[in-house]
Amino acid sequence: MRKICLLVSYDGSDYYGFQSQPGGNTVQDKLELAIRTLTGEQVAIHGSGRTDAGVHARGQVAHFRTESRIPIERWALALNARLPDDIVVRAAAEVPLDFHSRISAIRKTYRYVITSCRFPDVFERKYVFHHPAPLRFDAMREGLQHLLGEHDFSSFTSPLSTKPHHVRTIYEATLAVEPGGDGSVEEGRGRATLTITGNGFLYNMVRIIVGTLLQVGEGKRTPDDIAAILAAQNRAKAGPTAVPYALTLMRVEYGAEWGIDWRAGRGSLNF
Amino acid sequence: MRKICLLVSYDGSDYYGFQSQPGGNTVQDKLELAIRTLTGEQVAIHGSGRTDAGVHARGQVAHFRTESRIPIERWALALNARLPDDIVVRAAAEVPLDFHSRISAIRKTYRYVITSCRFPDVFERKYVFHHPAPLRFDAMREGLQHLLGEHDFSSFTSPLSTKPHHVRTIYEATLAVEPGGDGSVEEGRGRATLTITGNGFLYNMVRIIVGTLLQVGEGKRTPDDIAAILAAQNRAKAGPTAVPYALTLMRVEYGAEWGIDWRAGRGSLNF
Repeated sequence: MRKICLLVSYDGSDYYGFQSQPGGNTVQDKLELAIRTLTGEQVAIHGSGRTDAGVHARGQVAHFRTESRIPIERWALALNARLPDDIVVRAAAEVPLDFHSRISAIRKTYRYVITSCRFPDVFERKYVFHHPAPLRFDAMREGLQHLLGEHDFSSFTSPLSTKPHHVRTIYEATLAVEPGGDGSVEEGRGRATLTITGNGFLYNMVRIIVGTLLQVGEGKRTPDDIAAILAAQNRAKAGPTAVPYALTLMRVEYGAEWGIDWRAGRGSLNF
Repeated sequence: MRKICLLVSYDGSDYYGFQSQPGGNTVQDKLELAIRTLTGEQVAIHGSGRTDAGVHARGQVAHFRTESRIPIERWALALNARLPDDIVVRAAAEVPLDFHSRISAIRKTYRYVITSCRFPDVFERKYVFHHPAPLRFDAMREGLQHLLGEHDFSSFTSPLSTKPHHVRTIYEATLAVEPGGDGSVEEGRGRATLTITGNGFLYNMVRIIVGTLLQVGEGKRTPDDIAAILAAQNRAKAGPTAVPYALTLMRVEYGAEWGIDWRAGRGSLNF
């Protein structure tokens, strides 16, 4: 018996999220099928967390148990040969039997990309949210600062959240703005990348944060409103849930004690 | 009567190329339909050149005549509202009646992207050619040098070419290599962008150049073989035609005498 964990990237456009669900076409289903065709085993994959329908990942992590003796460096290539082209296993690593992709995770990083250029970039249209009007990027950055640290994020999660409590810690939150694919340098126009790192995220949390920040960017709310929304602990006080397709799970981090070495799995690592 | 020229970007994945053809679903068809729904006119659009089925564009240029009095700065937005999301008009400009997108063009620039990382980047899979084995990038660069200047490119065009002669001039040809989405820095692995500028390109010319350069990168041919292939003026001497989906028409340039001012058309410009 071994436990193997995979570093997985996927284009979530055509999936009902990562985690298996009744009648759902999910990334987990595709991975379990690929493992079955490779080893003959019907394994259960456990991901670091579900991603919503349409959300993408560059660094999702998922583990499973297997009796297979296939060398660790062969897994990624063998699974990729059995996966659709919108799912790629970037690396595989052997982990201790008590490792768990979700429970052992200590930090997660998500990215959300917004463009406020006049016209969308056709090559990014499935991965970037196009906001055709200018945005107040400085105000959005100021609003972000209120989210740093430990807070109850009840205002920023779906009422459907099943978590026992909504206290999470945000370690970093940045909004980097570059000229859009259109090279325009007009005030309020550009390609903005929100990168947010925390010890965990609630259901819809990043998308509701973005939906609320966009209202700040549009001048409909002030940066300080973010603090008031947090304090209210009431989903109704926050903004709408932003579209899923511009959100990507970039990275899941684990303590050094687990000794995860993606390189040993010959993985390609872009973080 | 006015003549308007458009700066057009498109994801060619789902089209049979730019130029109309019997039974073909083409970019030209979509543009002419959008203009008809906007102005009621059945115009004929003339592009700077056809692009093959599956080839993309960031800077295709196409013109048409119209009786419409719609102000030039309104055209891009109005047409985009009537176009599918894989075609975006980035700008519009009014041009002299004797301007012709193809005949007046003096320089064209194409880009072809190849990755030799172990695994493809799922987010670029439709726009980048994945070559899973390492490539000799230095040899490819050396081979490229033989293409600079004026040559008869008969060896690098399809026998289906309808052009009266095959002499073209290549002004610039560069191969820039960066670490792949996988950040790997191993010898021969990375994301390679070929950028080639000339006074004109023959049918399949860039794709055949790339197909031949890949053989140089694989060590199947030497850089100097490129010179011999050119001299042979025989398509059979060159390599295969590379896949279309990694090729993008980046830019078409015209003399200053035409006074094309994309900014006046409120265009987004990434060149």
